[in-house]
Amino acid sequence: MLNRVRSAVAHLVSSGGAPPPRPKSPDLPNSTSAPPAAPPQGPRSPPARAGSGSAAPARTVEARASFSRPTFLQLSPGGLRRADDHAGRAVQSPPDTGRRLPWSTGYAEVINAGKSRHNEDQACCEVVYVEGRRSVSGAPRGPSRGQGLCFYYWGLFDGHAGGRAAEMASRLLHRHIREQLKDLVEILQDPSPPPLCLPSTPGAPGSSDSSRLVGPQSCWSSQKEVTHESLVVGAIENAFQFMDEQMARERRGHQVEGGCCALVVVYLLGKVYVANAGDSRAIIVRNGEIIPMSREFTPETERQRLQMLGFLKPELLGGEFTHLEFPRRVQPKELGQRMLYRDQNMTGWAYKKIELEDLRFPLVCGEGKKARMMATIGVTRGLGDHNLRVCSSTLPIKPFLSSFPEVRVYDLTQYEHCPDDVLVLGTDGLWDVTSDCEVAATVDRVLSAYEPNDPSRYTALAQALVLGARGTPRDRGWRLPNNKLGSGDDISVFVIPLGGPGSYS
Amino acid sequence: MLNRVRSAVAHLVSSGGAPPPRPKSPDLPNSTSAPPAAPPQGPRSPPARAGSGSAAPARTVEARASFSRPTFLQLSPGGLRRADDHAGRAVQSPPDTGRRLPWSTGYAEVINAGKSRHNEDQACCEVVYVEGRRSVSGAPRGPSRGQGLCFYYWGLFDGHAGGRAAEMASRLLHRHIREQLKDLVEILQDPSPPPLCLPSTPGAPGSSDSSRLVGPQSCWSSQKEVTHESLVVGAIENAFQFMDEQMARERRGHQVEGGCCALVVVYLLGKVYVANAGDSRAIIVRNGEIIPMSREFTPETERQRLQMLGFLKPELLGGEFTHLEFPRRVQPKELGQRMLYRDQNMTGWAYKKIELEDLRFPLVCGEGKKARMMATIGVTRGLGDHNLRVCSSTLPIKPFLSSFPEVRVYDLTQYEHCPDDVLVLGTDGLWDVTSDCEVAATVDRVLSAYEPNDPSRYTALAQALVLGARGTPRDRGWRLPNNKLGSGDDISVFVIPLGGPGSYS
Repeated sequence: MLNRVRSAVAHLVSSGGAPPPRPKSPDLPNSTSAPPAAPPQGPRSPPARAGSGSAAPARTVEARASFSRPTFLQLSPGGLRRADDHAGRAVQSPPDTGRRLPWSTGYAEVINAGKSRHNEDQACCEVVYVEGRRSVSGAPRGPSRGQGLCFYYWGLFDGHAGGRAAEMASRLLHRHIREQLKDLVEILQDPSPPPLCLPSTPGAPGSSDSSRLVGPQSCWSSQKEVTHESLVVGAIENAFQFMDEQMARERRGHQVEGGCCALVVVYLLGKVYVANAGDSRAIIVRNGEIIPMSREFTPETERQRLQMLGFLKPELLGGEFTHLEFPRRVQPKELGQRMLYRDQNMTGWAYKKIELEDLRFPLVCGEGKKARMMATIGVTRGLGDHNLRVCSSTLPIKPFLSSFPEVRVYDLTQYEHCPDDVLVLGTDGLWDVTSDCEVAATVDRVLSAYEPNDPSRYTALAQALVLGARGTPRDRGWRLPNNKLGSGDDISVFVIPLGGPGSYS
Repeated sequence: MLNRVRSAVAHLVSSGGAPPPRPKSPDLPNSTSAPPAAPPQGPRSPPARAGSGSAAPARTVEARASFSRPTFLQLSPGGLRRADDHAGRAVQSPPDTGRRLPWSTGYAEVINAGKSRHNEDQACCEVVYVEGRRSVSGAPRGPSRGQGLCFYYWGLFDGHAGGRAAEMASRLLHRHIREQLKDLVEILQDPSPPPLCLPSTPGAPGSSDSSRLVGPQSCWSSQKEVTHESLVVGAIENAFQFMDEQMARERRGHQVEGGCCALVVVYLLGKVYVANAGDSRAIIVRNGEIIPMSREFTPETERQRLQMLGFLKPELLGGEFTHLEFPRRVQPKELGQRMLYRDQNMTGWAYKKIELEDLRFPLVCGEGKKARMMATIGVTRGLGDHNLRVCSSTLPIKPFLSSFPEVRVYDLTQYEHCPDDVLVLGTDGLWDVTSDCEVAATVDRVLSAYEPNDPSRYTALAQALVLGARGTPRDRGWRLPNNKLGSGDDISVFVIPLGGPGSYS
């Protein structure tokens, strides 16, 4: 992510600023026992707009730590080096000769133009089998029950201030989702409404059946109906949280010093769940129509949440920031004058008399890609960043960041999809220079040049999107056909066919 | 508002639970000096579902205090008595013979079916002149500058736990808006962007012109452009807040013991501003199309804001409530079992092991019209309620309520409106039994029966909407033609023509 972290000085953050602990996260097989095996790595400040003086870590250590790409790219050592070459910025895709990604998913990526040593995006595409944890309802398993569930999974992770958080998330987040779904295997396959209450011990006979529950004796006797869909949403939400907690636990041993945005797609039982925490984006292009499947979380879009937190917990501002927003920085000589402001409750602006504490730096400032929270970070949701502190300060930033995604659901069975209907996921390297409409036009142009049943068409489309955002080297920069600058950021794109030759029965 | 406050025991609330004071509210001419002149009145609990044992005040005092209707109805003493008759529930509208409301606005109201002694809705319709407070920019007034501004104003106020808050708001809120606009008179009439900073003393020569401002010397050099429209939005937002603060200040002397929802429309310089705090609703019906101009604020729609506040400030829950939501009340015997829940970050549901503190009453519970916050109130934004406490407790509810409206803006100049295009405002008495589509159908049916230039058509429409929601007395109740129950609540409706015979040059 280009310039997302204006200046990130990493320290070990005391637990004082962190939110209170949640119920303990589940033991992940092969997670704590198999973390990314890289040696410790020092904190790193991004090269662009870096204001901190932290020293760059030793090259050899860093190279070993971050020189990794998604396994499905099947890169040889030579291929890895080419993928890591900022001068050529060669587009990488899974080889034609290898096993295709599920659903014939297309994928392409390109490294940044030099803003960080390695590509800090990561990706994952898996088919995940979930075995039920045992009969959670207490009922003995019938012959047709107790079957596990499969979900299809795609994830894009856009790292900042180092690539380790993105790498860790790409290896483990789907396992956290699997863990969260284990308790739900039977429930999701049972057409009756989910039980509101389960026995304490899975497998023990209990009052799990909702019809057997004794009605409440209080004045409030209604009960909410909870859908299967909302259980999957809750499982994904909590999986993000547990992933983030694992990063917090393991950051000392494994130096997960940075953070990452996460954009994840889960396909389960006929529905597509798109979970986003950060500024990546997902859209569906269906018969030429654009259906947004995510929104971006930035200091601008989350202004009121951030200001509310600063207002309610002023100790988190450390006397260095004001929760009020001003249209520009207030100058000391303007004390006593009246300036436009808005607080956490307002969407409009009003004038207020400038007082001494208004001279503090605003919690939220700037616009568009230049918007910053605490003058440091341009994205307000994601995973990691447990060590991130305000430049030249010990003030932790993590309390203002949220690891919770927004989850949108798309029912694949409600529409007869054709092979040209796709779900496009991209990191901000794509969207910074490409509008939704331009993506839809590229979808139409590229797919119409291929036979509908040619499974390579989605990779061709992903490559075209990446190339269109990267541009070509000309006039001392990477430029688009209209001569504007292309994206100098890492660019990663998934193209998931919704009615293509892939099978998702 | 029917059943909005399940049980409201009024006490004097200590300032400890209230949000910190804002900049002092402006002195309102004729406000503190002319508050509603009724004698002191004791706290009142609503008759429906009332759980508190507070005694009803003496009838004579109450009658004098609350027996008031909007002045534009021009009700005689006999008319007042008929308007207050629960048995007849006669529809009230401004007389044909009197002066019409601005823009030929239609209005109709009907009292409730007995849920409270008097009609607790109030309404206001005014043309308000705003005189500039002096030359705020410091520039001498030219011949064409320094002219005041007019705005058109409509307000619906739906009271609960007494009618005094609604009455006070209907008399004063537009004056607070006028006060907030006084500083903006010159700025709004100047086509150049608003100055970001003004001199401290209005009229004094200063650095108000934005082009003369010295640029900031910090690393952050951008400045946000603020529109005229957002200044009006900010003025309305702050006016709501100042109105609420005035109610807090004067509640002891004048017994403003209840609260009210407020739905307000301001027309200024070509744009319609619709500000809503509560569960009233505004829609535009334009060429048969429905354009929502507000959304309702209830424990359901504001669940996450309320939970976040309870999570960050657990002392506000007083050990009596949990910020977690459960699909039904947790029973003590279920301790140790696992129940569905969601916290402030979640939209989905997940299972958690029930612990002792989960047995507390949930901060938010119930669904639809039965949703409640702190088991007490069904609406989460509005004015007043400074004395409201949880039933059988001293816990104040006000910290969870917000007096800030959501403001939506509609540019009247962007569309050529015909006489059948209207903005419909209604209290929840209308919307509880009437869908947006049914309102649009009534708009079409009634208006087509009148000549387009007949100014009485909008009153006829308002009456038809109120009658349609009230129904007729049959089978021991007020019933709609489909035999369902009509609304037993107070019902008030404004119909504002957007292209009618009214003049709004």
